Amino acid sequence: VERGWNVKFFDVTRALFKDELVYPGDCHPSFIQEDRGNYLISDLHLSSHSGTHIDAPVHYLKKGPTIDKVPLDNLIGKCRVIDLHKTGPVITAGDLEGQIEGIERLLIKTSFSGTDKFVEDYPCLDRTAANKISDNKIRCIGIDSPSIESYNCTGEVHRILLATGCVIIELLDLSGVDEGEYEMIALPLRMTGVDGSPARVVLREIAGDS
Amino acid sequence: VERGWNVKFFDVTRALFKDELVYPGDCHPSFIQEDRGNYLISDLHLSSHSGTHIDAPVHYLKKGPTIDKVPLDNLIGKCRVIDLHKTGPVITAGDLEGQIEGIERLLIKTSFSGTDKFVEDYPCLDRTAANKISDNKIRCIGIDSPSIESYNCTGEVHRILLATGCVIIELLDLSGVDEGEYEMIALPLRMTGVDGSPARVVLREIAGDS
Repeated sequence: VERGWNVKFFDVTRALFKDELVYPGDCHPSFIQEDRGNYLISDLHLSSHSGTHIDAPVHYLKKGPTIDKVPLDNLIGKCRVIDLHKTGPVITAGDLEGQIEGIERLLIKTSFSGTDKFVEDYPCLDRTAANKISDNKIRCIGIDSPSIESYNCTGEVHRILLATGCVIIELLDLSGVDEGEYEMIALPLRMTGVDGSPARVVLREIAGDS
Repeated sequence: VERGWNVKFFDVTRALFKDELVYPGDCHPSFIQEDRGNYLISDLHLSSHSGTHIDAPVHYLKKGPTIDKVPLDNLIGKCRVIDLHKTGPVITAGDLEGQIEGIERLLIKTSFSGTDKFVEDYPCLDRTAANKISDNKIRCIGIDSPSIESYNCTGEVHRILLATGCVIIELLDLSGVDEGEYEMIALPLRMTGVDGSPARVVLREIAGDS
């Protein structure tokens, strides 16, 4: 938590390092630092889905936009955090009832925040929850678990969400934030043609609150 | 240029792709995409100083903070863009006279924005300019050229700036923005222990303006 320009920032990004939790089958991050005498520089090897990251629509939709084409407007603006750590592991439309109407960006806090080990029954959305989010025209949905969709999934939940242009943020760390309204800033790298990107995601109190 | 939440965003990040301008000696970005049938995923190979990027103090100061320790407050907040495209290539304290007093973050637009090829005489700061920025306690300085310091440099300009905790953004694309006051959001990846990071940098109009 930091204070600046009269507001408080919450960094909801997981630290990226070589032993960071990795989705089974994805590459492990590596940073190889070189001392060139006068300065240090590093070679970075990452997956497009390492650590806290954003899925571009093309991740699951062959003709969907790539990460560099995701509008900044999906990624920056008012956001609601809801706490469903007592729900699940499968989150349904019923669990979202009365909590997401009229909002544009949604982050779901589950029991996974603060966890360092991958488990197959991580919290995730089912198709009814995905349809409800899609029907509400939410343009960005984030979760603190390794994926928005169950392990060994078909991709249906991803496709329902991505088809409406909703971007998906996965593996956030929401352990330090409470339910409520924030401004979110979620910035992926501007990589041409890529299916996703590690991202930095920050929340700040809305000026005038607190 | 995009509009959202009643403000206009300017993306001042260079697109990252395999043929993006690279500082001599640094690795070329590569993205290797794999089609896993159900979805696409990519292996990313980057330098900590690829494309638009942020130098952490440890890049040139052995005991300086790493990129994950740079305060968000240095990276988010009011920012002034000044246009020095008619100056240089070497920018001196005199060129900054009367333009940087009382500000916290500064981006310098030079003749390099919009350029795709590396040249050895790119625009840069000399030690007098670095000292003036340091004396003014500016906490973030950005430039659109490949480095804040001349080619074949000693690192002195970097060290003067970084020693005061000022972070340095290099290789911005400021071709689409005019001189003036903005809010800057400059977010590197949260990589533990690394000397710098590719970053996404966005400016937005300050609410109430225009």
